[in-house]
Amino acid sequence: MSIPRRIGVLTGGGDCPGLNAVLRAVTKDALFHGIEVCGIEDGFLGLIENRIRPLDYESVSGILTVGGTILGTSNKANPRAFPTSTDADGNPVFEDLSDRCMAHIEQHGLDALVCIGGDGTMTGAHPFTEAGVSVIGVPKTIDNDVFGTDLTFGHLTAVDTATEAIDRLHSTALSHHRAMVVELMGRNAGWIALSAGIASGSDVILLPEMPFSYAAIAEAVERRRQRGARATIVAVAEGARPAGGAQVVRDVDPLSPDPIRLGGIARQVAAEIEARTSVEARHVVLGHLQRGGTPCAEDRVLCTRFGHHATTLLREGRSNRMVALVGNQVTDVDIRTPAGRQRTIPPDEPLLDVARAVYTSFGVPG
Amino acid sequence: MSIPRRIGVLTGGGDCPGLNAVLRAVTKDALFHGIEVCGIEDGFLGLIENRIRPLDYESVSGILTVGGTILGTSNKANPRAFPTSTDADGNPVFEDLSDRCMAHIEQHGLDALVCIGGDGTMTGAHPFTEAGVSVIGVPKTIDNDVFGTDLTFGHLTAVDTATEAIDRLHSTALSHHRAMVVELMGRNAGWIALSAGIASGSDVILLPEMPFSYAAIAEAVERRRQRGARATIVAVAEGARPAGGAQVVRDVDPLSPDPIRLGGIARQVAAEIEARTSVEARHVVLGHLQRGGTPCAEDRVLCTRFGHHATTLLREGRSNRMVALVGNQVTDVDIRTPAGRQRTIPPDEPLLDVARAVYTSFGVPG
Amino acid sequence: MSIPRRIGVLTGGGDCPGLNAVLRAVTKDALFHGIEVCGIEDGFLGLIENRIRPLDYESVSGILTVGGTILGTSNKANPRAFPTSTDADGNPVFEDLSDRCMAHIEQHGLDALVCIGGDGTMTGAHPFTEAGVSVIGVPKTIDNDVFGTDLTFGHLTAVDTATEAIDRLHSTALSHHRAMVVELMGRNAGWIALSAGIASGSDVILLPEMPFSYAAIAEAVERRRQRGARATIVAVAEGARPAGGAQVVRDVDPLSPDPIRLGGIARQVAAEIEARTSVEARHVVLGHLQRGGTPCAEDRVLCTRFGHHATTLLREGRSNRMVALVGNQVTDVDIRTPAGRQRTIPPDEPLLDVARAVYTSFGVPG
Amino acid sequence: MSIPRRIGVLTGGGDCPGLNAVLRAVTKDALFHGIEVCGIEDGFLGLIENRIRPLDYESVSGILTVGGTILGTSNKANPRAFPTSTDADGNPVFEDLSDRCMAHIEQHGLDALVCIGGDGTMTGAHPFTEAGVSVIGVPKTIDNDVFGTDLTFGHLTAVDTATEAIDRLHSTALSHHRAMVVELMGRNAGWIALSAGIASGSDVILLPEMPFSYAAIAEAVERRRQRGARATIVAVAEGARPAGGAQVVRDVDPLSPDPIRLGGIARQVAAEIEARTSVEARHVVLGHLQRGGTPCAEDRVLCTRFGHHATTLLREGRSNRMVALVGNQVTDVDIRTPAGRQRTIPPDEPLLDVARAVYTSFGVPG
Repeated sequence: MSIPRRIGVLTGGGDCPGLNAVLRAVTKDALFHGIEVCGIEDGFLGLIENRIRPLDYESVSGILTVGGTILGTSNKANPRAFPTSTDADGNPVFEDLSDRCMAHIEQHGLDALVCIGGDGTMTGAHPFTEAGVSVIGVPKTIDNDVFGTDLTFGHLTAVDTATEAIDRLHSTALSHHRAMVVELMGRNAGWIALSAGIASGSDVILLPEMPFSYAAIAEAVERRRQRGARATIVAVAEGARPAGGAQVVRDVDPLSPDPIRLGGIARQVAAEIEARTSVEARHVVLGHLQRGGTPCAEDRVLCTRFGHHATTLLREGRSNRMVALVGNQVTDVDIRTPAGRQRTIPPDEPLLDVARAVYTSFGVPG
Repeated sequence: MSIPRRIGVLTGGGDCPGLNAVLRAVTKDALFHGIEVCGIEDGFLGLIENRIRPLDYESVSGILTVGGTILGTSNKANPRAFPTSTDADGNPVFEDLSDRCMAHIEQHGLDALVCIGGDGTMTGAHPFTEAGVSVIGVPKTIDNDVFGTDLTFGHLTAVDTATEAIDRLHSTALSHHRAMVVELMGRNAGWIALSAGIASGSDVILLPEMPFSYAAIAEAVERRRQRGARATIVAVAEGARPAGGAQVVRDVDPLSPDPIRLGGIARQVAAEIEARTSVEARHVVLGHLQRGGTPCAEDRVLCTRFGHHATTLLREGRSNRMVALVGNQVTDVDIRTPAGRQRTIPPDEPLLDVARAVYTSFGVPG
Repeated sequence: MSIPRRIGVLTGGGDCPGLNAVLRAVTKDALFHGIEVCGIEDGFLGLIENRIRPLDYESVSGILTVGGTILGTSNKANPRAFPTSTDADGNPVFEDLSDRCMAHIEQHGLDALVCIGGDGTMTGAHPFTEAGVSVIGVPKTIDNDVFGTDLTFGHLTAVDTATEAIDRLHSTALSHHRAMVVELMGRNAGWIALSAGIASGSDVILLPEMPFSYAAIAEAVERRRQRGARATIVAVAEGARPAGGAQVVRDVDPLSPDPIRLGGIARQVAAEIEARTSVEARHVVLGHLQRGGTPCAEDRVLCTRFGHHATTLLREGRSNRMVALVGNQVTDVDIRTPAGRQRTIPPDEPLLDVARAVYTSFGVPG
Repeated sequence: MSIPRRIGVLTGGGDCPGLNAVLRAVTKDALFHGIEVCGIEDGFLGLIENRIRPLDYESVSGILTVGGTILGTSNKANPRAFPTSTDADGNPVFEDLSDRCMAHIEQHGLDALVCIGGDGTMTGAHPFTEAGVSVIGVPKTIDNDVFGTDLTFGHLTAVDTATEAIDRLHSTALSHHRAMVVELMGRNAGWIALSAGIASGSDVILLPEMPFSYAAIAEAVERRRQRGARATIVAVAEGARPAGGAQVVRDVDPLSPDPIRLGGIARQVAAEIEARTSVEARHVVLGHLQRGGTPCAEDRVLCTRFGHHATTLLREGRSNRMVALVGNQVTDVDIRTPAGRQRTIPPDEPLLDVARAVYTSFGVPG
């Protein structure tokens, strides 16, 4: 495996602060070392549809602070199983389009790919690795749930955004002597809720990893009211659920008449607080606000470090690696590391103790 | 009517940025002129329950930048019709507690009240005016719908917050080639949606004052897609509704199975865009985020001007006035001016033309 | 005078938040009405050097939130007196290049110019008006000192920036029991210092319009210390000066050994506080921070209104008008209105009373 | 050594974002475990002057987001060498007041001290350790230069603030085709300039650790201009200096006629750029802006972790430890670790390579 002469770069999966910052670092670093760069539009979709264009210094100038991705992205565009038509019942028919992608890769003379995305994006690049293309993954999630790295880019900005939002809700909760329930992203991993919960001084934090009890939440709210606290803030990850209860999935079918599915867990928690205590409760769902905006300074530095490391690996003739942060060192792991695994909050996570010590409850008794 | 020696001040109705800034200005200005100040807790509720305490310089130090109200507030605490018990069917029984309030006012020697709130708060002060207490109202709303003033405090901060949120959503919409529907406050008056829509460069603005057509929205989204626009942003006031359709009211009954009521108008608009176009749509409801946070500089100046004018009126021996902004002059109107009327967007509002000219559609044909 | 078919637009003078927002509104509004738009680079310099390029929807897409101007700007590029060479002593020789500019205007078929800038920019357009080109001015300043309009765009954002900065300094001043002196823009007009001073709860405000007394400042600082205040914040406009003293001009000659000129007025005030009281004093000069950044929501709306009005005037066949805000109405005045006059703070400005009433001193006795 | 029953907590040295957040965590965590807490006002000064007061939940409620320290702080209040009088020549006479401090510690029954501060604060606690008081240090600096910990709290917020400021200056630099020189804190360690420089996409970064060459800076500015870059941003640490040149110290004597001392290094760099290139240069000194404001989310989490670990150590009967972050683990080191050493940027720091790779120059040739 030799040093690449021209590389392709793409961004896949959901939007995330810092995508452009990584694109910029990869592009500038590659150009600096005499490697040409092509941008692939809308993730693997652009590879399938042959939407590939050269990137120069000018292309990435001024994008460091801009949210989103100048290349566009796509969800669920898997080259090995792409929905190309529908059957008689209207169900999608999937086709393996990886050969078509390889033809486009060869047409543009790309020796290597930098794939910026989550687990799905890493996996989606598999066929090209097998065909001899060098692939480096750069792990991205809001949720920080990619296995193999202590931190993904985008997460710190999402925590910032969530924390600022909870700060803002605090004053209203205090003025009205209310409980305010804030729903944050995190289907299986509650890192945003845990960090933003601590950072905002939330009083109750509900995580997917720790099934909660409505009775315990109600008790915490009442106890606070009785000792004079003017407000209770509940930070709830979207994937949190009561012990024995089902996870509340939102946005599955917007016209479904099922109120729980429609409302999300925050609404449910607020309703239960009102039913079980004498405290008024309101809820807010931050949703996509957490995906957007300019990356925070720490994320911009991390993105630049990650992008630099990706091209460094390629220049060293390496492939099938995912850039990773371990402790505070940028390093790399096998690109298959995250496949089928998620980095959730372990029971012995120190932040859990920290939260408890500053008097936060997790909605679980004890 | 003579110059008061001791005044009471209260904040009523929903939370709003700048309440503390007005409290600070009223208190500092009064103390500066040798007038004593008492803070009444939780709006009229504190008057009913005799929770009244003196305010000095120290009490209001450092609160200028803090959202919410240090006095607390209450919704719907009308002294003339206060729910004191429930009848056999569980319905509330209302009682006139204005005499009790007057007793507390006399007990604390309050010659005058400054009532900071919306229309309901102005009206709630009526019995005391009749009993000879000087009353000055300071108009507060997020929505800027108080009749008699061109601007209420809190509105500009809400517009700022909404605009920043839409900025943040823009990058995600662009990255995913999506329509993003953002629901903003405004049940009957769409000022937040109109101003934040223009300030954020939203492509479609839906207002309570102009019933819209789903077909027209879909057409705007499709037209934009066809001419290469990567995203469409729809700013929708919570009270907007389709022509011929009912207003979607949220939060009335969180456990109701009615999906439209539960979902709010933003969800509905997003669902219709997905049903009528080939564009993916997502929605976000800003909700209480718009009520909180530190007031913006303009609001802090306005609050300080309003608070100063309120005490100036009292020092001039005047009563039954509501502070108002006309053009850019602080002045005052009869306190009954807003009763039963709302300042909605008139059809000839110049901002409507401005929005149309920069290519914003209002979801109405033509 | 008929409706223009193609217009030129330029931005002149110092950077100011909202320039891009006006450019966007002018361009979109003109295109919407079938008028072509050309952007002139770097103010009148681009007219002299024939750097003129067409603007379309794409050119102004996404610039609403971006500080600065995509066209670039230039200071002091007066077409009638442009420095083209230097004489034997190295002094500039000025030439009248207005004919050359007119040739370029005709070459590009521009019927009209929209000149976004301050007083100098309005005046600079004179020769073209005389030659029959329709000219509309859009008033821009950080300082809000353009005569003929109650508000220029950019000012509110500068006040926001200054207020946020003072908020930030407040906590340090409190922690260290210090006086903190913050220098804000405003050579002849103190509007930024007055508004940001009130918005930030500054304790002393020093304005160019009101020569101050060091003794009075020292007395205010000492009085505050004695009654237990932990900090004193002084907001000083760069053009403020002591009664009988000369204005301190900064940045004139960076290598000059004159400490007052070098240090600016904020350093001077801090030094005098330390010399006259027992209170430690520090100073910060915000400088160019006030010119940059994304415009606040109110400014974006104002810019959009101003840009819309500029093209509306052109479409109505009018010329030689400057867009203006009077009260809260967008209107227009003769473009020569601001020439040779500045909108400074009048002695009867209501904000002065408001500031005094919330206990702010102006550094003047009494 | 046994578990303490009552502890004192103080904040020393310069203001820093997150002081209150640590105070809150220490207090809440101690109270939660049945340990009483006393706050010592203004650092060691309060210990000397016996200004010590109990802290309860209410005392630390709502302070998480507030910059500064509710206890106040003092610089250079060393118990072993405190200036108590002046000699005939007006020079301070220092006295050892540690016995007086110990008497106050005993009077209030404090078994342990948590000292939040920098190297000086750790050292200042020495006499009490020797007298048998348990002491835990929590390392605080803007500059991140405390030896023994990878990160101090406050640093990330300062980097955020600096980055936002440079973002804001970028648009002005671009509009005017200027070089903009921004001076950031860091006398001996350039971490803020390095991180904020990378995060903001600065083109030249000048660090105390790497003496620079004006010729190299000028060359970088010119080279950028020639290849069409519209602006050059220079991030300079206050302690950076040209090779062979002396460090520029500001604020030593505000009335000194020495222009270099007065102006600071940023002014000097701007002047040299103007003298050596055809590019206009401006400078801004952020100064105290970097010390204030609400801590960012990451800092709030770090502060809470640090405060929790401090009390955990005390509860485990340990003393003479300084809380530290190593990698991303909170741990602790001997409290004497930082004495006489500073954590500066080593020549093999990976961020230096990262910066070079994205095309940042360090003002040194090569």
